Amino acid sequence: MNKNRIENVLKRTDCDALLISDPIAIYYLINRHIYPGERFLGLLLKKDETPVLFLNTLFPFEEMEGLEIVSYSDGDDITKLVSEKISKDDVLGVDKMLAARFLLPMIKAGIARDFVDGSLPVDKTRAVKDEKELELMRISSRINDEAMARFKTLVYEGVEERQIAAQMLDIYKELGAQAYSFSPIVAFGRNAADPHHMPDDTKLKKGDAVLFDVGCVYQGYCSDMTRTFFFKEGPDDAQKNVYELVRKANEDATAKVKEGVRLCDIDKTARDVIENGGYGKYFTHRLGHFIGIEDHEYGDVSASFKDLTEANNIFSIEPGIYDPETLGCRIEDLVVVTKDGCEVLNHYPHDIEIIG
Amino acid sequence: MNKNRIENVLKRTDCDALLISDPIAIYYLINRHIYPGERFLGLLLKKDETPVLFLNTLFPFEEMEGLEIVSYSDGDDITKLVSEKISKDDVLGVDKMLAARFLLPMIKAGIARDFVDGSLPVDKTRAVKDEKELELMRISSRINDEAMARFKTLVYEGVEERQIAAQMLDIYKELGAQAYSFSPIVAFGRNAADPHHMPDDTKLKKGDAVLFDVGCVYQGYCSDMTRTFFFKEGPDDAQKNVYELVRKANEDATAKVKEGVRLCDIDKTARDVIENGGYGKYFTHRLGHFIGIEDHEYGDVSASFKDLTEANNIFSIEPGIYDPETLGCRIEDLVVVTKDGCEVLNHYPHDIEIIG
Repeated sequence: MNKNRIENVLKRTDCDALLISDPIAIYYLINRHIYPGERFLGLLLKKDETPVLFLNTLFPFEEMEGLEIVSYSDGDDITKLVSEKISKDDVLGVDKMLAARFLLPMIKAGIARDFVDGSLPVDKTRAVKDEKELELMRISSRINDEAMARFKTLVYEGVEERQIAAQMLDIYKELGAQAYSFSPIVAFGRNAADPHHMPDDTKLKKGDAVLFDVGCVYQGYCSDMTRTFFFKEGPDDAQKNVYELVRKANEDATAKVKEGVRLCDIDKTARDVIENGGYGKYFTHRLGHFIGIEDHEYGDVSASFKDLTEANNIFSIEPGIYDPETLGCRIEDLVVVTKDGCEVLNHYPHDIEIIG
Repeated sequence: MNKNRIENVLKRTDCDALLISDPIAIYYLINRHIYPGERFLGLLLKKDETPVLFLNTLFPFEEMEGLEIVSYSDGDDITKLVSEKISKDDVLGVDKMLAARFLLPMIKAGIARDFVDGSLPVDKTRAVKDEKELELMRISSRINDEAMARFKTLVYEGVEERQIAAQMLDIYKELGAQAYSFSPIVAFGRNAADPHHMPDDTKLKKGDAVLFDVGCVYQGYCSDMTRTFFFKEGPDDAQKNVYELVRKANEDATAKVKEGVRLCDIDKTARDVIENGGYGKYFTHRLGHFIGIEDHEYGDVSASFKDLTEANNIFSIEPGIYDPETLGCRIEDLVVVTKDGCEVLNHYPHDIEIIG
């Protein structure tokens, strides 16, 4: 149970009741992992009332103080069970992912005055990390820094991308992480100019860029960082120019971060650097995404996302230039928004580095 | 595109239009894999009209004869796009899994006269396999038969369940399959009395039951079979009695299968055998499930599922007795319903077999 988080969610909504069904949001609010598959799972929140969890009897669940459990069996009428816990005059906020087969019967039975998408209060609460989450996010990124220092030592002439990738999980585990936060990207040479390249049998050769976009999960919290190295020999002038543009975009955008800034303006800071350098068309994605329990959470650092930052938001700053003729390069860190600026969670340097 | 399947779906519905969003159902109907993640994907079907696919521009898609594509970008109004392809007087059947964030705006905008769960026509069409599917299901189960004959040779005194399980995928691939249809169950001794046991470090010893519940995917179609062997020495009389009851339950239920039989009656045939043998309380699950592109598809062979079989339904017949003091045993085959009986897709024998 996490009463503070539940209170924070309820502060952010005008709905009379919220019915949350995303298992990860429920984990966030009550600290229990329940994956119900095709079956209904719902956490009902109402101001000043005990939260209610609707749970199939198939899933064992230890009682929890401050949480009412409504157990049901296959064949029971979910709509009726939920209706008994809300009023017909309520506006019910439902999870954005709630499946039609649960939602339609509720609407048809008229168990609430209105039904609206009620996920935003949960998403926005999750976007503001509390102290415990900040600590886990720091550790997850510290492990990622150490892992990056190990990954770069794995390269040698002729090694395949996937051979490097295959060694990463063990290294993360040795360093104390439990899993990948996403499937790692290892890209050599021109492959680094594809931002979504997956490790394949491409062999490393002298002069190649070596891009690692990697992250782990530590006690449920994700890290995510990218560095671009050079194998055996340094970048030529054109490559150096690209690299330094990406680095400046990262660092200028990071310097822009503080509480109360529009997220689109942080994106613009990075984008302006790259556009002014003549590579605008090669920066083909948003600057960043929010992160926490999931690698990608609600919230963008992009031209279309006008929300203001809040203190303890955590997101990535990951500008890139993907010019197959010159260089594919991305430099990514995670940052925590503070009142006056930000805390960068990654400490691996941004300098041009020749490896191998 | 699979016009026959689309026609069969439309024959089974009273809705004016169906909006299908399950990527697997869409694959079934138009033969393309599209996994849109959080983004909207919809296939709109109306009688005598060209099917329409709503697809985000992020997903590359080659044009297809007989299919209209409505491309949209992030930020476009999905509700409006769908409304332009249906009438306000239509009853719209939506996918049972359609997410609230897509469904609620459609309902609020009143783009249809009524919204109902429209998945059943698709599910019931998928349950009736066509010739191409039958052929792939036959091959998938033939591979599974061959794999079973290989798996039983892997056992030796002291081997751990998970060491056996770890070798199975390679064997399936050697035999021409592409993947597991589900994570294989390997259970020794008392573990066989847990129908959902996952392979662990339990070591094999003389006299143990050895249960393999395994399946593979061949060109998109799943197999699923269970056999229970004995290691080094045969069953005692009580075990033999249990084994023969399960075998008789399997074979009597299989003999009951033909077009037009209530699925609950097939379940009852097997359940009666086991209950009359005194082990009713140890047969703790339904007799079977439908199978095809997914290992578990819509349709049950259980006491509560009263539908009649249709020709070319494929489902499992998998009675079990889980008595930890005597024996855990399950014998499972896949069967295809025919006009006069059924075709059993598995050919691995049911006889008591001592291995090792």
